[in-house]
Amino acid sequence: MMAPAAGELGVHLRVLAEAPDSSAAQVVVDSPVGAAGDEAAVRALVDGADVLTFEHEHVPGPLLAALQADGLPVHPDPGALRYAQDKIAMRTRLTELGVPCPRWLALPADGEAALAALEGFLDEAEARGERSAVVKTARGGYDGKGVRVVTAAHDVADWVQAAADGGVPLLVEEKVPFARELSVLVARRASGEVRTWPVVESVQEDGVCSVVVAPAPDLPQEAADRARAVAVQVAEGLGVTGVLAVEMFEIDGPRGAVEIAINELAMRPHNSGHWTIDGSVTSQFEQHLRAVLDLPLGDTSPRAPWTVMANVLGSTLDELTDALPALLAAYPDARVNLYGKGIRPGRKLGHVNVSGTDLDVVRDRALAAAALLRGERAPTIPTVQGATA
Amino acid sequence: MMAPAAGELGVHLRVLAEAPDSSAAQVVVDSPVGAAGDEAAVRALVDGADVLTFEHEHVPGPLLAALQADGLPVHPDPGALRYAQDKIAMRTRLTELGVPCPRWLALPADGEAALAALEGFLDEAEARGERSAVVKTARGGYDGKGVRVVTAAHDVADWVQAAADGGVPLLVEEKVPFARELSVLVARRASGEVRTWPVVESVQEDGVCSVVVAPAPDLPQEAADRARAVAVQVAEGLGVTGVLAVEMFEIDGPRGAVEIAINELAMRPHNSGHWTIDGSVTSQFEQHLRAVLDLPLGDTSPRAPWTVMANVLGSTLDELTDALPALLAAYPDARVNLYGKGIRPGRKLGHVNVSGTDLDVVRDRALAAAALLRGERAPTIPTVQGATA
Repeated sequence: MMAPAAGELGVHLRVLAEAPDSSAAQVVVDSPVGAAGDEAAVRALVDGADVLTFEHEHVPGPLLAALQADGLPVHPDPGALRYAQDKIAMRTRLTELGVPCPRWLALPADGEAALAALEGFLDEAEARGERSAVVKTARGGYDGKGVRVVTAAHDVADWVQAAADGGVPLLVEEKVPFARELSVLVARRASGEVRTWPVVESVQEDGVCSVVVAPAPDLPQEAADRARAVAVQVAEGLGVTGVLAVEMFEIDGPRGAVEIAINELAMRPHNSGHWTIDGSVTSQFEQHLRAVLDLPLGDTSPRAPWTVMANVLGSTLDELTDALPALLAAYPDARVNLYGKGIRPGRKLGHVNVSGTDLDVVRDRALAAAALLRGERAPTIPTVQGATA
Repeated sequence: MMAPAAGELGVHLRVLAEAPDSSAAQVVVDSPVGAAGDEAAVRALVDGADVLTFEHEHVPGPLLAALQADGLPVHPDPGALRYAQDKIAMRTRLTELGVPCPRWLALPADGEAALAALEGFLDEAEARGERSAVVKTARGGYDGKGVRVVTAAHDVADWVQAAADGGVPLLVEEKVPFARELSVLVARRASGEVRTWPVVESVQEDGVCSVVVAPAPDLPQEAADRARAVAVQVAEGLGVTGVLAVEMFEIDGPRGAVEIAINELAMRPHNSGHWTIDGSVTSQFEQHLRAVLDLPLGDTSPRAPWTVMANVLGSTLDELTDALPALLAAYPDARVNLYGKGIRPGRKLGHVNVSGTDLDVVRDRALAAAALLRGERAPTIPTVQGATA
């Protein structure tokens, strides 16, 4: 999705495509095929490049550090990227920065010690009200993978064993009694300029983002300002260059106060920012290009009072384009974005943005349009928490 | 510029590129190189295609008719396209339709007869107030080429001789005392659905569009409605499928009335519609794809009260991207679109769109940003006629 912005700004994009028919290879002329972990492929990719950047975090840090040592600008910096690759490093750093986080604990590698530490963490949770917690693998998780809600240590006995055998380390986090999930997108360039977009509400289904409402409805201005300031603090504190998505919990505090705690970080253009393609003066993809090229950042103002992004997660259609005649006829205001991926259950295949002045109308139309792409006739419109404006 | 929309709608684009480094070849993966008049190249291009369309009018009609006879949908239809290729055919048909046109006359092929007819046309113009007229080649003109303002027949003696020798036929048109130039963009799909965008003002420099203001400032609603209705009448009357730009003269009529007359037609996405990329819910490029694929058309509402498009016509810079650091810093709201073309004097190298609520501010910023891309330090801001809002 960076391709249109690259074309417009005169930036030559060379993308390492996972396969000849991958989404990127369909729309980027210069897209050699190779794995992100293949040193030879990556070195060939960056030959002659001004900068290397990423659209996912699964790139080996040592390779990036080697390229950087050879003089290639790498953005985000490998030193920053590791915070998005390793949740223990991320929580450690955020805690150092004094940024609000859920309670958390890195589990020891030793199996018995890990189980004991986890039981202790659950005891404390029970003392606060509910014996449950969230165990995460420190690396490799995304879209709900590598995350398990537990009420007893043996719920993750397999992961603990794997960690003890030299596998991925684990951490446990408080299961936050959140009111809803928010996300703040921030862009930062090497020379320091930072811009944030309005705070959005992100609705998850089975751990996967399904709907984003921009801006987050009914969020007090003070809380929105605080959330944006925290996102800037994280971007600066971690030395992020490029776009960073800071996913947050909104928590009902005492006396009507709104509290926030950081859930996850994504150090790249993120699903919670796809609304910006149509709903903001500068999209997150153009902004990411500007930021990693150390060009001045663009205006992040919204183009409409409300924009709702609805994901297409899986489809019963043979081809998503089969839905276009009905969809475009019913929703001429819908901005359809299909990713050119093969259809698999639950897979992110595309999204729809709708903008307008009436949130209920905008949301209904975005959800109904996305439902048509999923192959549903009569769309099911999920409730968006807190969205009563 | 159709590439981003094609990607988003899941449309596979295969473009016949003029050269391996042409604008299209830089952003379209499937872009074989060949000439639009090369039958073998065009036949290879359309192998397996659902529809053939164009981004310029210089495609041989007989080849298109042959492809159509072989069962390939061609949009716009060759029968419609000839009105954009041949100004005599266009004026003849528009006159049949009763659409307002300048006075005009097809000049006979015979040289002496042509010169006599032209003198007669000039005599009539003189009787109305000014001995001048506009002679045009019926085919092959664009951006001011193939157009000559004359005050005597011998001003086009060379063209008349060429026509007599079997070259391009000529027509003469009244030199309309217009107040300003307007343009109406209309999209029509094969099954009949038609949509127009708001009427825009188009400012020309040396016969080339330099600035577009959307919507046309101070245009009475009744005149805007009439202009849009005329554009629809033309699209329907000529059987156009796809996007059609109807360039019009606005003429001060008696008692403050606004009259319009059709100047030129462009049967494709057009420079006067580049503002729609950022300023309208649906861009002319996406709309053209929808129309030629006979998909329902998108919302043409503006996204902001005002959008101004400023062309970059030539540049003194080595590379347009050299201007980006200063431009993006000064104009974070500017939407820059560079075409990846080599720099030549007066060549259309890109454009800048700026949207907002204050026309003066919007126009000043768009013009100043475009001036930076032309390599100017202190931007010269041309006056936009009639733009006093």
